[in-house]
Amino acid sequence: MSIFSKIIAGDIPSYKIAEDDNYYAFLDIFPLVEGHTLVVPKKEVDKLFDLDNDTYTGLLLFAKKVAAAIEKAIPCNRVGMTVIGLEVPHAHVHLIPLNGMGDMNFANPKLKFTPEEFQATAEKIKAQL
Amino acid sequence: MSIFSKIIAGDIPSYKIAEDDNYYAFLDIFPLVEGHTLVVPKKEVDKLFDLDNDTYTGLLLFAKKVAAAIEKAIPCNRVGMTVIGLEVPHAHVHLIPLNGMGDMNFANPKLKFTPEEFQATAEKIKAQL
Repeated sequence: MSIFSKIIAGDIPSYKIAEDDNYYAFLDIFPLVEGHTLVVPKKEVDKLFDLDNDTYTGLLLFAKKVAAAIEKAIPCNRVGMTVIGLEVPHAHVHLIPLNGMGDMNFANPKLKFTPEEFQATAEKIKAQL
Repeated sequence: MSIFSKIIAGDIPSYKIAEDDNYYAFLDIFPLVEGHTLVVPKKEVDKLFDLDNDTYTGLLLFAKKVAAAIEKAIPCNRVGMTVIGLEVPHAHVHLIPLNGMGDMNFANPKLKFTPEEFQATAEKIKAQL
């Protein structure tokens, strides 16, 4: 069971942004910027491009809705999307509010927020959904 | 008219990977790694998430097919996908063969290939489509 499946099951707490029958979105707790969000299918498949077409397009449409809420909630030029997938074997889409090219650099130090700050960020985004 | 629209129109040459009525895929001439490919909608819209849902899912399904060909053609762990979009105001998806997290870092120096090398890479990928 991947760490994301444990989060979806509620065995590991998360700052949830959105959920439906097939997908789950929550704040990345190692954020590159405020509002950095992960969107995952509940189906545990390692590689994004190995998802069946319906799950794949459903995931990316779910991510589109979440991205629109992030763009309204967090000051940014736009929301970027990236899928790397080498660290957790459960397909996941990063949604990252961007103001410059450097904001998407995973070599950057990750930001630290308190639980209260994470919760406030999640509430801001959820209010735009 | 964006530089990508000029490429699609053939006014600027490109190393084409695939094309249909609505989408176009070609090698990035500033590649992070061999096989780094751009996939764009022919419709010129700045932000990925502003595409209508049909164009958006069509683009990402087209990218999925191209990614499968890249993964077969280029030795890699998997193909990553990223959309940043701050440099050209025409939505574009980067498909990048990955062996490590660092391969997706846009701060890395871009590789230089000769036209013959780019053409050979394009042919290898097209052969897997």
